[in-house]
Amino acid sequence: MQPLETWAGPRRAALETFLAELFMDAWPEVFGEMARYPLTTGGKRIRPLLCLAAHEAVAGTWEPAIRPAAAIEMVHCYSLVHDDMPCMDDDSVRRGLPTTHVKYGDDMALLVGDALLTEAFRLLSRPWGDATMQLHLVRELSTAAGYHGMIGGQAADLGALGDITDVETLTRLHRGKTGALIRCAVRMGAITARADGRVLDGLTRYANHVGLAFQLADDVLDEEQDAGDDGPPSFVKLLGREETTRRAQALAVDAEEALGELEAPILRQLARFSVERTI
Amino acid sequence: MQPLETWAGPRRAALETFLAELFMDAWPEVFGEMARYPLTTGGKRIRPLLCLAAHEAVAGTWEPAIRPAAAIEMVHCYSLVHDDMPCMDDDSVRRGLPTTHVKYGDDMALLVGDALLTEAFRLLSRPWGDATMQLHLVRELSTAAGYHGMIGGQAADLGALGDITDVETLTRLHRGKTGALIRCAVRMGAITARADGRVLDGLTRYANHVGLAFQLADDVLDEEQDAGDDGPPSFVKLLGREETTRRAQALAVDAEEALGELEAPILRQLARFSVERTI
Repeated sequence: MQPLETWAGPRRAALETFLAELFMDAWPEVFGEMARYPLTTGGKRIRPLLCLAAHEAVAGTWEPAIRPAAAIEMVHCYSLVHDDMPCMDDDSVRRGLPTTHVKYGDDMALLVGDALLTEAFRLLSRPWGDATMQLHLVRELSTAAGYHGMIGGQAADLGALGDITDVETLTRLHRGKTGALIRCAVRMGAITARADGRVLDGLTRYANHVGLAFQLADDVLDEEQDAGDDGPPSFVKLLGREETTRRAQALAVDAEEALGELEAPILRQLARFSVERTI
Repeated sequence: MQPLETWAGPRRAALETFLAELFMDAWPEVFGEMARYPLTTGGKRIRPLLCLAAHEAVAGTWEPAIRPAAAIEMVHCYSLVHDDMPCMDDDSVRRGLPTTHVKYGDDMALLVGDALLTEAFRLLSRPWGDATMQLHLVRELSTAAGYHGMIGGQAADLGALGDITDVETLTRLHRGKTGALIRCAVRMGAITARADGRVLDGLTRYANHVGLAFQLADDVLDEEQDAGDDGPPSFVKLLGREETTRRAQALAVDAEEALGELEAPILRQLARFSVERTI
């Protein structure tokens, strides 16, 4: 079987090139540099790789999905820029570098986040493919990024529901906050590949399981770093470490099963990767 | 001739109803209330009225343009929520009410702004009309709201270009910061009405003139309130009050001329309204 990193190499390189060429015609020119900063300073690019892998599982090629893959990464990056700001998490370092607001000021960071979100939709709407498919992608991304998805989860995480003390509510929070973009990444790859309804349903269930497995793994990893009772609610706090790990492993199995007969070795590896982080 | 306010009444009422029904299915529910707050607390609704008037000038009806009209107002409201935040203009009152961040906190205000922007694109992408036309609207709105338009102008206004000392640069700033959404409002109304290229070009020139006339009028009004040398660059500072007023009047004439043979009494009134504010 092809190692995940061998598969990811050329795809990640193409994505990096695509992202680095955005905002080159900005006015003021210096604002283009500011907007490229969070886009081009790393990360594992999990969401765009999921998008490309889903397209590849359906169509056998990945190149046609580079545009939705870039759009989903832009939305992820915008959410990080805004999340890092002093009025949110107040983080000054990300991936070993100053966060956008530390480097360029809070006002410019706010605009950079706004610009990354806006440009993701412009990217999907420029002349490129079939209008019906492109409009479907806009609908998927705006639903996943908005109050039905990521923003709803963030609002719950900021305390809009008060303290969260049950697994069902915490699961719903994370299906929005982190799960929605992961599901959207996989669905956009499949939609660009013109997957039929049955395949799209299977991939959607796969993505739901993977998204939650990633979050459970994150909670276990975070617990190792910080055993305190403060901070946001977590599955480890509600379920304990052992049960959280067990559920993550079960979700990875569910994810693989959701793929059914689909020949998708990379998606299967990505599902296992999501829980190997926990053990 | 029908007075502007008689024309505007039922159209503004339909828009208010449309906006008040957004975010009703939000989770967390309280986040829906937060997002409706800046949307439903007033303003003159100039941009959506321009959108409806442009549609009416082309097609004789305004109802089919209510959706793009609402989308442009959502983008305008998001920009106000973010602009009012402490890291930007730090305004605590708007239209006699506490600004969103004063009422709900800076973190929620940031998310509310993000949600209004995202939802504008979801509104345009939901099943509603012809996919090619809808995708065109997404492209228009994302271009006008992004770094080619409003955000580019805001970045210049925040000092990305250093001090602005010439009329050409200030004009370019305002063609982005305030002009882009006004142009987009008119164009979206015309595109929804399937205006042909010649009519769309005329309406675009009309909107460019009106947008700049509005800004010149604003600068004259602001100068009356505050004669100081501090604050942002303005046309009055660079040109003087008399020349700024003269140019605004000339732009209103240009705007009417750009309409050519188009029977558009409301658009003509709106052009005159834009400069009557200066004299």
